[in-house]
Amino acid sequence: MSSLLYQQIARQLADDIRKGFYKPGERVPSVRKLSTQKGVSHATVLHAYATLEDQGLIRARPQSGYFVHNTPALTAPTPPIARVEQPYAVTRSGIISEILHQSRREGVIPLGAAVPSSQYLPLRALHQQMSKVTRFHSQKAYSYIFSPGYEPLRRQIAIRMRDAGAVVDPSQIVITNGCVEAIQLCLRSVTNPGDLIATEAPSYYGLVQLCDLLGLKVIEIPTDPDSGLSLESLEKAADKWPIKALVLTARAGNPMGATMPEDRQRKLVAMMAKRCLPIIEDDIYGELMFEPGRSKALKAFDCSDTVMYCSSFSKTISPGVRTGWVIAGRHQSAIEKLQTFTTLSACSVSQMSVAAYLENGGYDRHLRYLRQEYRKNLSSFQLAVQQYFPEGTQITRPAGGFILWISLPGDIDAQRLFEQALEHNISIAPGAVFSHSEQFNHCLRLNCGVPWNRETEAAVMTLGVLAKGLLSKNKVVEAVDEEVA
Amino acid sequence: MSSLLYQQIARQLADDIRKGFYKPGERVPSVRKLSTQKGVSHATVLHAYATLEDQGLIRARPQSGYFVHNTPALTAPTPPIARVEQPYAVTRSGIISEILHQSRREGVIPLGAAVPSSQYLPLRALHQQMSKVTRFHSQKAYSYIFSPGYEPLRRQIAIRMRDAGAVVDPSQIVITNGCVEAIQLCLRSVTNPGDLIATEAPSYYGLVQLCDLLGLKVIEIPTDPDSGLSLESLEKAADKWPIKALVLTARAGNPMGATMPEDRQRKLVAMMAKRCLPIIEDDIYGELMFEPGRSKALKAFDCSDTVMYCSSFSKTISPGVRTGWVIAGRHQSAIEKLQTFTTLSACSVSQMSVAAYLENGGYDRHLRYLRQEYRKNLSSFQLAVQQYFPEGTQITRPAGGFILWISLPGDIDAQRLFEQALEHNISIAPGAVFSHSEQFNHCLRLNCGVPWNRETEAAVMTLGVLAKGLLSKNKVVEAVDEEVA
Repeated sequence: MSSLLYQQIARQLADDIRKGFYKPGERVPSVRKLSTQKGVSHATVLHAYATLEDQGLIRARPQSGYFVHNTPALTAPTPPIARVEQPYAVTRSGIISEILHQSRREGVIPLGAAVPSSQYLPLRALHQQMSKVTRFHSQKAYSYIFSPGYEPLRRQIAIRMRDAGAVVDPSQIVITNGCVEAIQLCLRSVTNPGDLIATEAPSYYGLVQLCDLLGLKVIEIPTDPDSGLSLESLEKAADKWPIKALVLTARAGNPMGATMPEDRQRKLVAMMAKRCLPIIEDDIYGELMFEPGRSKALKAFDCSDTVMYCSSFSKTISPGVRTGWVIAGRHQSAIEKLQTFTTLSACSVSQMSVAAYLENGGYDRHLRYLRQEYRKNLSSFQLAVQQYFPEGTQITRPAGGFILWISLPGDIDAQRLFEQALEHNISIAPGAVFSHSEQFNHCLRLNCGVPWNRETEAAVMTLGVLAKGLLSKNKVVEAVDEEVA
Repeated sequence: MSSLLYQQIARQLADDIRKGFYKPGERVPSVRKLSTQKGVSHATVLHAYATLEDQGLIRARPQSGYFVHNTPALTAPTPPIARVEQPYAVTRSGIISEILHQSRREGVIPLGAAVPSSQYLPLRALHQQMSKVTRFHSQKAYSYIFSPGYEPLRRQIAIRMRDAGAVVDPSQIVITNGCVEAIQLCLRSVTNPGDLIATEAPSYYGLVQLCDLLGLKVIEIPTDPDSGLSLESLEKAADKWPIKALVLTARAGNPMGATMPEDRQRKLVAMMAKRCLPIIEDDIYGELMFEPGRSKALKAFDCSDTVMYCSSFSKTISPGVRTGWVIAGRHQSAIEKLQTFTTLSACSVSQMSVAAYLENGGYDRHLRYLRQEYRKNLSSFQLAVQQYFPEGTQITRPAGGFILWISLPGDIDAQRLFEQALEHNISIAPGAVFSHSEQFNHCLRLNCGVPWNRETEAAVMTLGVLAKGLLSKNKVVEAVDEEVA
């Protein structure tokens, strides 16, 4: 029996090593540990390890234990266990998942997800603050900071909200796991499954999916690239349907880049207040307006607790720290409760580090730098798209942010463009994912939060060639390859 | 008009300073910034600042800007703006929120929330790893790491899962914002609002609330402090009602401390597999079993993708990093999608730091230390409760973790005890919050993840005296005060 046992143990560990669980040079579990884990004697484990040593898979180091042998043959992983998958690539959420993952993939030009290149993030300054926080306040930084979140961070955000034209108290702010959680908490606190909400057409693809997941019905209100959401269409829709809330971005919207003029912002808030309907405002690009003194958030015009304000530092400081916030007015208690019992709280280290970074005062300078760079990038992308894309291509002129929305001429299917571009290691976001309808199938969104250089210019050129190929309905992939090379 | 403007600006800034937005010694916005923000001339802002200087509220420093004057009179904050509140203190979620916040409050003995004292967390080692990660891999650490999460962390967790008796591949693991998000994602992926699920009676208070928030109906299955969930009751309930899933903790449960014997674990998994009903296993205390070789997770007995496994490092490494995980089998794609569109992902810095800490190899040693300390603490608390609490008090004997469940004799209302204890700066968790029913109103839970010393012993003594007072139905608060003093 004992001979069988040691063989079983040896076989399992050999499997693990071949699968890459333990990498070459890494220590395998100690004899003591494995004997406890398996409930067998030390002698049995020693026997198993001796077998593996004979097979050349591990090697003992005196006083240190057993280590995976450093041979090249072991580094090649076996294929992973097959996973049960939903039908995947053809769904919108599958495309979005692809777009997100491509934004972090080596060798891909990430024009798909709206993620700024890390060179635009204040990483050195943030790292300095995080080091201080974890060194001098480690007890607090590694403990829970429960909803509504870290007070000094809420104070810094309240100060920042003045730039958006909104006067709020730190006690009115709840820290969230990014802007997505903020919007989710707002929607869950003002709607029930089956309810109808109004969104922009087109709107942020995460919102399109979130509404599906929450079981919400959606009416999409047309958005004009210049003046934003059509108030006239909204009014008509609200007359006709039992809308429960409106979700929109009033400044540098995603993907249209639209910014609503102040008079229309006022009108919108008044109209919704009159109907007692909440507005969930996603202002994540608000701090990236190119002329910061000349625009305000919707929240600035809210005198009757109509606007629930959501934002985050993902586009300006760091997406990886997952630090957003929500100003929810009379729904605040409900939102704190929802957060407490669905994610408990946001990361403490992140909350304290971002607060320290904001306090330290370099943020305004950093924002000025970002605005200048993104404006330049947008301009370069716009001109290149104009030059390389088929005649009849339409391009937005955002007043902030780093996102370009492009409408292709004729019957070009942007999803085909998305697929072809990927073969050239270029990621874009096809229009279809920004709506429940089919009306943006000939559109695409470009992330211009990446440096403009020969590589990005070549990518835009390739996209143009591919688009022209799709327009002429002829498969010209070979020609493209030549032209690009 | 201009004279009015500068007065308005001065008044608002004065308000902000009095409210504590800008603390004594801090810089107020620069003239340039405020003039952009308000859309007024530099001269107007300078005029406003001069007024505030005259009032002694701010002071100019050459070449540096304006600073809040450092006078003691300014440090006393005015009361904050009143917030619209839901009826609060009487609800269970209100009590839980109180318990959570008291666990972090200065001067309160935190026996309420199941949060280990920070002296039991490996803060120095974690800090070292986090410093390395943010210094040498800052681009990755501050960028998104999308669902399913950081691969090296998933690999470390797969290795750890062997200790729980479960053989899983890193690709089967999804990193979450703590265990609460893991459980939430499981519930949302296998139920719809209105569905019925089975839970333990009593069960983790967060779960009780989460079910409410998800609109789930709940049938509570009795849990025996020794053998865990009653399989007989579960079988009967499943025969009678359309149960969609079971949520439970099979090892060192919360609050009962029960651990299910292996034969009953096997039976449970087989029973649910036969009915094609998923089990959502919360194994957050699994690594804190006092005899680690002698117990396994339910997942260890799962050969038909019945068990969805949830856990986190909140009880062993750090709650503030919000790092948990879920092994969801055939529901994994759905869960990745749900996470992507509700919180996007977990904190990148946390994921990388915890992975580095686990790789570094001190974790097993740390766990051995924790088990030893928690076992000692539990024993001290048990003996003290036996000594100081009224005759007839019943106490659990957990085989792991740091939680004690106490049943008080007679008709003692533990919520009254909770309220009275708070007046003595002692936080406990009253039994009522662990169930939808009223059957645990005479019970309470004590967090023993705090060092045993004179202070904690005095707290248990005070609780005993208060409990005796409630038993005799006489208000003996004055006597208590004397006895405690």
